[in-house]
Order: sequence, then C-alpha cells, then structure tokens
Amino acid sequence: MNVAIVGATGYGGLQLVNLLKNNKKYKITYLGGGKSSGSKWNDLFPFINLYKNLSIEKISTTSIAEKAEVVLLSLPSGIASTIVPDLLKKGLKVIDLSADYRYKSLDQWKKVYFNESSIYKRDDFDLCEEAVYGIPEIFHKEISKARLVACPGCYPTSSLIPLIPFLDQGIIESGGIIIDSKSGTSGGGKSNNINLLHSESGEGISAYGLINHRHTSEIELTLSEMTGSDIQLTFTPHLVPIIRGMFTTIYGRLRDPGLTSDDCKILLENYYRKYTNIKILPVGKYPSTKWVRNTNNIYISVKVDTRNGRIIFLSVIDNLLKGQAGQAIQNLNLMKGLQMNQGLDLINIYP
Amino acid sequence: MNVAIVGATGYGGLQLVNLLKNNKKYKITYLGGGKSSGSKWNDLFPFINLYKNLSIEKISTTSIAEKAEVVLLSLPSGIASTIVPDLLKKGLKVIDLSADYRYKSLDQWKKVYFNESSIYKRDDFDLCEEAVYGIPEIFHKEISKARLVACPGCYPTSSLIPLIPFLDQGIIESGGIIIDSKSGTSGGGKSNNINLLHSESGEGISAYGLINHRHTSEIELTLSEMTGSDIQLTFTPHLVPIIRGMFTTIYGRLRDPGLTSDDCKILLENYYRKYTNIKILPVGKYPSTKWVRNTNNIYISVKVDTRNGRIIFLSVIDNLLKGQAGQAIQNLNLMKGLQMNQGLDLINIYP
Amino acid sequence: MNVAIVGATGYGGLQLVNLLKNNKKYKITYLGGGKSSGSKWNDLFPFINLYKNLSIEKISTTSIAEKAEVVLLSLPSGIASTIVPDLLKKGLKVIDLSADYRYKSLDQWKKVYFNESSIYKRDDFDLCEEAVYGIPEIFHKEISKARLVACPGCYPTSSLIPLIPFLDQGIIESGGIIIDSKSGTSGGGKSNNINLLHSESGEGISAYGLINHRHTSEIELTLSEMTGSDIQLTFTPHLVPIIRGMFTTIYGRLRDPGLTSDDCKILLENYYRKYTNIKILPVGKYPSTKWVRNTNNIYISVKVDTRNGRIIFLSVIDNLLKGQAGQAIQNLNLMKGLQMNQGLDLINIYP
Amino acid sequence: MNVAIVGATGYGGLQLVNLLKNNKKYKITYLGGGKSSGSKWNDLFPFINLYKNLSIEKISTTSIAEKAEVVLLSLPSGIASTIVPDLLKKGLKVIDLSADYRYKSLDQWKKVYFNESSIYKRDDFDLCEEAVYGIPEIFHKEISKARLVACPGCYPTSSLIPLIPFLDQGIIESGGIIIDSKSGTSGGGKSNNINLLHSESGEGISAYGLINHRHTSEIELTLSEMTGSDIQLTFTPHLVPIIRGMFTTIYGRLRDPGLTSDDCKILLENYYRKYTNIKILPVGKYPSTKWVRNTNNIYISVKVDTRNGRIIFLSVIDNLLKGQAGQAIQNLNLMKGLQMNQGLDLINIYP
Repeated sequence: MNVAIVGATGYGGLQLVNLLKNNKKYKITYLGGGKSSGSKWNDLFPFINLYKNLSIEKISTTSIAEKAEVVLLSLPSGIASTIVPDLLKKGLKVIDLSADYRYKSLDQWKKVYFNESSIYKRDDFDLCEEAVYGIPEIFHKEISKARLVACPGCYPTSSLIPLIPFLDQGIIESGGIIIDSKSGTSGGGKSNNINLLHSESGEGISAYGLINHRHTSEIELTLSEMTGSDIQLTFTPHLVPIIRGMFTTIYGRLRDPGLTSDDCKILLENYYRKYTNIKILPVGKYPSTKWVRNTNNIYISVKVDTRNGRIIFLSVIDNLLKGQAGQAIQNLNLMKGLQMNQGLDLINIYP
Repeated sequence: MNVAIVGATGYGGLQLVNLLKNNKKYKITYLGGGKSSGSKWNDLFPFINLYKNLSIEKISTTSIAEKAEVVLLSLPSGIASTIVPDLLKKGLKVIDLSADYRYKSLDQWKKVYFNESSIYKRDDFDLCEEAVYGIPEIFHKEISKARLVACPGCYPTSSLIPLIPFLDQGIIESGGIIIDSKSGTSGGGKSNNINLLHSESGEGISAYGLINHRHTSEIELTLSEMTGSDIQLTFTPHLVPIIRGMFTTIYGRLRDPGLTSDDCKILLENYYRKYTNIKILPVGKYPSTKWVRNTNNIYISVKVDTRNGRIIFLSVIDNLLKGQAGQAIQNLNLMKGLQMNQGLDLINIYP
Repeated sequence: MNVAIVGATGYGGLQLVNLLKNNKKYKITYLGGGKSSGSKWNDLFPFINLYKNLSIEKISTTSIAEKAEVVLLSLPSGIASTIVPDLLKKGLKVIDLSADYRYKSLDQWKKVYFNESSIYKRDDFDLCEEAVYGIPEIFHKEISKARLVACPGCYPTSSLIPLIPFLDQGIIESGGIIIDSKSGTSGGGKSNNINLLHSESGEGISAYGLINHRHTSEIELTLSEMTGSDIQLTFTPHLVPIIRGMFTTIYGRLRDPGLTSDDCKILLENYYRKYTNIKILPVGKYPSTKWVRNTNNIYISVKVDTRNGRIIFLSVIDNLLKGQAGQAIQNLNLMKGLQMNQGLDLINIYP
Repeated sequence: MNVAIVGATGYGGLQLVNLLKNNKKYKITYLGGGKSSGSKWNDLFPFINLYKNLSIEKISTTSIAEKAEVVLLSLPSGIASTIVPDLLKKGLKVIDLSADYRYKSLDQWKKVYFNESSIYKRDDFDLCEEAVYGIPEIFHKEISKARLVACPGCYPTSSLIPLIPFLDQGIIESGGIIIDSKSGTSGGGKSNNINLLHSESGEGISAYGLINHRHTSEIELTLSEMTGSDIQLTFTPHLVPIIRGMFTTIYGRLRDPGLTSDDCKILLENYYRKYTNIKILPVGKYPSTKWVRNTNNIYISVKVDTRNGRIIFLSVIDNLLKGQAGQAIQNLNLMKGLQMNQGLDLINIYP
C-alpha cells in the first residue's frame, strides 16, 4: 500500500517515516512539507536514511492522490481541514494527527480552536461527524471501516485508556476526576518556542493551561459521549525536562469503596486482555516513562485508598509513539485489515 | 553565636555550611559526620571552602556542647532521637531536620517509622510534645521561644504553605484534597540508591509511595491539628530528572463556589503579607521551579474552575533550601531573635 | 543457535537480551547473574519482556554448556578469566565483553589490571594470544574462525575506527595523536557509584583518568600491533550528562599537508565501503550522538586545517550498542557465518 | 556609581542585573533593550525582583548619558560599535561584552566578523586600538585606567587563563596547542535556535565550527600579541546538555620534558597567587563544572605525561559569570578603583 506523509519533517512526521521505512506492508511514496519542500530527505535527516531517497514536496492533493492510497497528516491545527475534504473526494483514506476532526461537532471545535477557526473557514460539519476517534483498542471496529480517522494526542490517550473501563462500567464516580499529566518537551514540537529551549526547560518543572487547556474539552467530550453523562473534570498539563515520554496521574473516587486495588487491576486486565501493548502492572508496582521509550506500549498501575475509596491510576506512554505516530500506524493497520500492532514490535531503549 | 552542624556532608548539611559560612551572625565551630569523620572539610569540598578549615568529627554530644550553643541536625531518620535528649540537657538549642520530632505523638511516629522504631528504642514522649514544627511563617512565635524545632522537609513545606490559609479559614472543603508533587533527585540524598543514578532517573518520570507515603501522615496530622478536624488526603510523590526543585500541584474544592481566582489570590497575599519570601503570583501567571533555585523563596499560584468550584494551587520551592536547609536557618534566626530571613538574600541561578 | 548471556542484568547484558529476544537466528537459553540469580527475568524487567520467561541462574559452566553453544560474557574485569578456559574446553564459543582477553600479552594485562590480577590468578597466556580483538569491520576474517573474541568497549571502538585507516596507510603521523572522548553515564554501569548519581553527574562535566586510563594502553597496543611501530598517544575520557552516547574528538597531523578534507573523507569511505553501519559524513557536516541512539551505527566526520596539516576526526556511537552489545552481536553473527549486521537494523530514537 | 545595562534581558544582561541589584557600590539606573523595551522589569522577571522597578528603555545614548556614568553593553555582534564612540564622547566609561573591540585591528575584526562588517560600517580604528582586553587577572593595570574594556567570552577566558603563564614564560611550545572545549547551552543565548531546544540538545553531544570558529582567531591573536610569536592552534567547541558551565581541556607540549605535574601546578599557583578566584587544584584532583556554578571562580588542573612531555590543562568556569557577566563586574570594579572581586562572593549551587 502506498502511503503519503504530510508534515513529514516535524517530530510526529519523523516518527511516521521511521516506523514505515522498513515496513514491508507499506511503501512511502510521498513526503509533503512546508519550508523544507524541495530538499531531499536524506540530506536533511542522514540518520533516518530512506533506501529510496525522496524529495519533500509542496503540499498538493492532486500529487498526493496520484502517488498514494492513504495519507497521514501531521500538521498544525486547522491546516488539515483545508485539504481533507478534497483528499476524501479523490478517494484516499485519511489519518489526521491534528485536532481538526476530533470533535463530533464542528461548532464545538470552533469554540475551542477559536483562533484557528478565524483563519480557516470550515463548513465540513458532516466530516466532523463521520470521523472516527482513533484509539484502536477502543474503537477498532469503527476504525477498520473508516475513511477518516482523527488520532488523539498524548494527553487524551494516556488519560482515556485508564479511565474508559471504569467510567464505561460505572465503577468510578463521573464527577471530581483529576488528571495531573507530565509531558516531555518533544510534545511541544520542533518549534521556535523560547520556553522549550534547553536553557529554559532544563532543570525546571512548570505547569500551563490550567483549567482551560484545549485537551480538557477533548477528554470531557469523549468521555461524555461514551458514558452518556455530562462529565466535567480537571486536567493540568506540566512540562518536565525529559525529551520522550508522558506520565499521567489520575485521581477518582470509587462508587463502591469496597473494591480493592487487586479488583481494579483485574478489571483493567480483563477489559484490555486482547491488546498486548496495554500492560497492567501488579498492585504496588509503578512504571517509569523509561519503560516505554521508543515503543508503542502503555503501562498502567492502579491503587485504591481503602480508607475512603479514592483511586489512583498511573499511566506512561512514549508521547511521540503511542501518543502520536505509533497510534496512527495502529489505525493504518486496522484500516488496511492488518493486525493492529503489525510493524510496531519496537526495541525499547533502556537505560 | 557558635553553631554545630551534624551530618554536614549530606546534601542538607552542605547547604547549611554554605549558608552559614559567610554569615556574620554565626560561626560554624563544629562539623559532625559518620564515614567522613577525620577528614578536613576543604579537602572533601574544595568548592565550598571554609576560611577556617575544620575537621569533620565523630558525633559526640560532649564535644558539641563544648563548642556550640545551637546545633543543626541533618541525619537519617531515628538517629537524632539518640542524641537530642542529651543535647537539650546540656543546654543547647536544637534544630532537627529529620522527622524524629515532627509528630506530637511518639506512638504515631513509631507507627509510621516502624523500621526505625525497632532500631532506636525511644521514650522521649515529652520532647515530641514539646518540639515545635518549624514552618517559620506559621509558627514564628512558638519557634522564637523553642528549645527544639522539628523542621519539615520539602513535600510538607510546599503543600502546607498554600493549604493552611484556606483550611484555617474554612474556605476549602477539608475532604478530597489531592497533592500531586514532583521532586528533583537531590531530595533522595547522596546515597547508594540505584534509582537515583543519572542513567536510571534521567530521561524518566516515575511515582512512588502511593497512598502510604510517610509524608501523607505528616501532612494530614499537621492540618488536622491546626483545623481541629480529621483530615484525610491523597499525596502522590513523583521523581523528575531535575536536581534542585519541587513543584507541588494541589487540588481542592471551595466551600463557596462563588469565589474567584482573584479572591483567592488576595486571600493568600493578605495571609502572608509580612513574609517577603512567600510570593503570590498574579492570576494566570504560573511559576517554574527555576525561579527559586538557590533561593529560600516559595512562589504560589491559585486558579479556580468557575464551573464547579474546583481550586488548584501551584507551589515551587528549592527542595534543599526552603524545603530543608534554608528553612532551618529561618528557624535559627528566630530562635536567636533575629529577623527571620537574615542571611538568606540569595542570588537566584537562572537560567 | 542456543545462546547463553552471563551478566544479563547489567546494562550490557540487558542490551544483549533486548537485541536477541526477537532474533530468529538465535534463542536465549540461559541467563546468568550474581545477586539477581533466582529471580524470574520478567519480574525484574517487565519492560524487556521475554516470551518464554527464564530464571536468572547462578553462573555454572556445566549448566551453560548443557544449554548453549555460544556464550556472551558481560562481567566485571577479571571474572571472565575464571570461566573462559573451562567454557572453551567444553566446546563453547565465547564472546567476552570485558578486557580480560583484549591484550595479546597476559603480562601486559597484569600490569594494567593490577588490582584484578591480584584477585584472579591467571596463567592463560595462550588464550590471550589466541583471542581475536572484536572489531568486526577490521578483523572479520579472524573473528569468523575464532573460538574466543574479546570485544572492545566504547572508548577504543570510537577511537580506533577513525584512526586505523590513516595509521594503517601511513597518512598521519604516529606521534602526538590526541583522543578527547566524551561519554554518557551509562558507560559507568548500573553501579553504586556516587559520582554517577543524577544529582552529581547531572548539570556537570568532568574528566577522569588523565594520562593513565586503562584504555590508553589498550588503544596504543592495538595500534602499535597493526602498524608495527610503537605508538604513544594521549587519551582523555570525560563524563557528560547524557545517558546513551559517546562523542570522540581525535587530533592528528597529516604527513602530507597537501591533503584536503575531501581527500581524507574519500579515503575513509573507500576503506569502509563494505560496511553499511560505518557512515562517513560530507565535509563540513558534523554528527550528534543523538543520530546513533538505539542503533549500531558509527558516524565519522573529518576536517583538515590547511594552514598546518592538522586533522580532526569526530566519531559518534551508542556506547551500549556499537560500543558494547551491538558489536558483540556483530561478532556473534560472524562466528555463526551470518551477515555481520543481521538483526541489527534498529530504529533510531530521535529526538 | 550609576550604571546602565544595555541588552538587559538576554542571559548576559540578566546576570549583570542579578549581580548588581544588591551591590551597595553601584546603582542600576538604566536598563536598555530591543523588543522588550516599554515593559517593566519586574513584570518580565518576577524572580529577579528589583526593589526599585525600572522600565526597559529603547537604546539611546543621550538617555544613557543622563542617567549613568558607566555602561555595560551585552549586545549581539556589531551593535555595540554603533553606540560606543558616542558614549565615550559623552564621557561615559564602557564595558563591552561583545567581540566588537576585542581585536586591536579593526581590519582583522572585519575579516572575522564578515557579515557584521557588511551591516555595520565601522571606522573606529583608534577605539579598537585603545580598548583593553578584559581579563582582570592579566590586564588589571590597563583596565583600571581604561575608558573602554572589551570583555572576552567563555571560550577565550577558560582557554587563556591556563595557557598564558606557560606561553608567557616559554615553558610550553607555541605550536601544536589543542583546545577542546565543552559548553553548556546557555552560551548560545536566549534565541530562536532550533539546535538549542531541549528536544534537540538534550541527551546529545555535538561539535561545531571546526577549524574556523571565530574564537580561534581571538585566542590566537591574544596569545600572539602577548608572546610576540605567531601562534596557530586548534580550537574545537562542543555543545553539551548542561545549562551553566564550560569545561576546557587543553593539550600542549613542554619545552623541557623534565618538568613534573607538581612543577607545573606550582608555577600556576605562583602566577595567580594574588587572585583568590583562580584556584589551582592538587595534582591528580580534577574539577567538575558543578564546582563553579553561580560563582565567578575558575578551577585549573594540570598533568604531565612523563613519557613524552605532553601536558594537559583542565579548566572550568560558569560560562555566564567568569565567562561573561561576572568578569564584566570585575572589570567594572577595577575601573572604579575597587577591589576586583567586590560583590562577587557568591554562593555556589551544589549539587
């Protein structure tokens, strides 16, 4: 299957290239970019060498449609929406790594992505409704039949995978959930952001986007839709000086305070027993983000405070793989009818 | 005033030496240690040069009493309790940086510090009751008259300073408080701990001591005592690859959901208006741990979720200064009748 | 082929397990260790999961010989020499990652490894002479016929690969060579070394072993033997706060100052043209250690000062792969008659 | 004395503010900047609080002359030369932290700073000749009488201080010197440089500017002028993921190979015996950059290879203090007739 990667030189795009370049099921036939267009890939990235060196092209839906059957979009917010309708019309399947199609309601997207909506005038209400939210371990059926998949990023992925089984089955209260998440700096991308300089972010911890971060609404809406109730929660992102990795600590309250940590661990194991990349740890064993670097795995721990029924979830992912490009490849596999984790048997880097 | 520092070669002790060596109000006259005893200070630490080079001595209360009027103890849990009674009897004032005298009830201490209590047989119930908990901005009156001050460490300090005004005045609910704290590696000390190797802790985030960490009980008891109600909370410590600094994120719920972020910020300002090292940030401005490196300051932000009355506090400290040695010097100043922050006007290291 | 890994829980051993666990040409049938013996591998390292969980066994040559045909030894200096003679006698092939068989002369080894030689009484002069020095791109012929291969570590590997073509062909002077090498902390192993704590090594650069470092002699002897002249050089190792990676800067002097950077680059390309994991960069392009993380590649740059014929080489490797376990697998492949880089087509982690 | 700081919001400027804000001998009366002009200092840098909050002003020599007697310039290359002539004419003393006046010959500057010289048309030949090179421990006499001091940066400072005594006295050969220097990321400034992102520079080591780096010429010219001979050397800068600090390793050759490490150490001690911030280590003791963080000290080690008379120097400085702002304050003190290290008795941050 011929694959196009658009936005190939950002951190997400780079992972997509790296994951697909030796995968025998796929062939990268198009690389699209902005400022870097015109350059040869191997000149820019000698350390991610393509056997058949490609040029990075200006983004053109015609050219993409000529060269590929499926396209992976790794672009800043709003831009995907300017080419997705045309790509679908031309018969391509689309996997979008941005937030453009993560909201069922375009009006909701316009509220949250206010600035982008004033630049990119959108009326693709139907596509927003059609798009499938790309967590493959939850929505595999819908993904396997989809034309358009909206991949969630690292914050929602690391939050939703532990929470869904418990909210889905009504085991924890839907109110008062707190998500305290810690991200490495690569989540901020390869951008001219002074705050992401080593001198600024190194040797420091900070928080940002309190209460109103965009992903609060994405997580709330996804959970509300799945559970049918209106979920309000607290999500606080933090920036921590590691390059790769995300650590998410989630606090909730059991409806039945008699459940033990072991009960909750078994519940998670059962819910995800078919998904080998979701790993539930024994009670009392806690993961490090280092366990998942360069892999598409997620590790989850759960612990209950038996005094009062408080429950804590810990989850770790590689923010650029399970939190971005690796998850996109899982969706690609499903859309092509392959086993979800094909080509994702990666070698963990430790220490 | 002649000062003894015991446990001088650990990270806490080193800061004490550094803070006192050029302070004209104090003279370091005794340095005590274990394995390092017999060595000359300047040979071990050429980069923290003492004008008058001292030898590190074996710990002896007689020797301490001959040379000093006040003693700062920076020792592993349990050891202080073996010499404090004798030091007080000999007329010294004692500032203990360990947990040995942080619990009013020795029985409580024995429960929490179970292993230590089986090694060090204690019956100094009266001293546990007498000892003053050393947060100088809260307990200055008691500290200024105390013989024995028990300095809290970084986790309780960064948690209690933001919470006390709100619990003390009944503004937030006493149940359901969550403290999600992120510590740099120096908090683990200069110890043979594989987990603290750069290769292990670098490029990784992890959590430990869920639900049952010792400091949960210390924070709960201190708040319960101050408010008169039985407070149960959730405290989760995380290890993050910075050397110096602690970032604490606290989640609570307002009793009156009509209060705004600004109201809460003003409340904090008023509560601590006399303490120049406690800095309350404008609403929407969030601190980094880098703001406090090499200083004795604490910065606090507060933000309210107006949808539901949830409140978030952020606090940052240098874990070895306001979280350890700097706070000890504040207590020392108060015990000597000096201005609390004398000698603590330090130059922040940034970037 | 059944393979035993001894010293499996150190950083080198871990990489060996990681590299072999999904390699269809090999089967790990024995894991040997010291303190960790008795534990199940997957309990200790859930993030490097073995499909068939093995127990870590006490080191026994009988047991190794029953279970494997080839053994990889990743042990502290001196220990390998206590079991290698017996392993060879039992008909196994041995790849030793320590320095025990890197010196043709056992007397020389005893001089350099003075402390070890007083603990481990050796008289295996013949094995020292028999052992092949395991740089596969240089000694492939000898390695493919060897019973015993002594793998060099990261410092000699990153130094010798750039230097050998130039000394071998007499293009640079054999005197006055300077090797200034910078290592990540994982090179120091998973050990109780205070200097390797994150709090100590983080945010700092230091040097050690000036003039007399053991690897000075190893590099000198290897080059002397290859060139037939007595080579004395200067080697200075530095410790830098990265986990994985080695950057080596080498300074020499051209015999013919008329050679250009391009001439020297072409010479390197020709010398190593058959080895796809040795990558020579265009003149003026300099590598980062990040280019090789989690791979078995080495990148080399060369630049000439046309004013005076000074020449500079830069080389980067992943210290635990091309500098340790990856190189061992190359040797294993050669000893089994496979293509040298089989199973080593790894995904680089970037950023 | 009223002092103006121009370029106050860069990393160098920030250190100047931090060092002077509590210094009783000086009063900061003017802060100049570019994009940040118009803002109040304390709003931008709440963590470097000025008791008397100043606005950052657009750069104007008239305004500077009204408010200050001496001006510290921390500006990008070339800009200082556009205002220095006017500032001197108006009677101010000037300390320039850029390279604009570090070359005695303006023609030489134009050759090395080719791009800048095409933007900023200069003809201030006389000022280039008049300016004093600001290493206070070497040129204190000239500095104390100067109107214009050109402060060297971190690379030349950490290289020249160890080399000068040995070249000055003809103890090492003037040919073949190699300077292998490792810099932290703050040396690159607070700039939109992708290479300085944490995701790019973290967990990596790289080199840049081989052979032709601008500082090669600055170091060569300074040494040539001092020794009267034409010195050509090799200087290689490396980027290492620490924020603060520079480690410089220098390789030379003794003229008299009979000298020992101890002889050389004593020579250094004698040469700098009056300068308490230059610290010579015992033979065999090697410094870390952590020893000098947040201080104005330089530590130097020296070691001789007795086999062949090769000599190695190690030096460490805080690149933003002794390598930039701290050295500028030393020059300021000398120009005002104060003791060189007044106000520079800083507390080292360790660990």
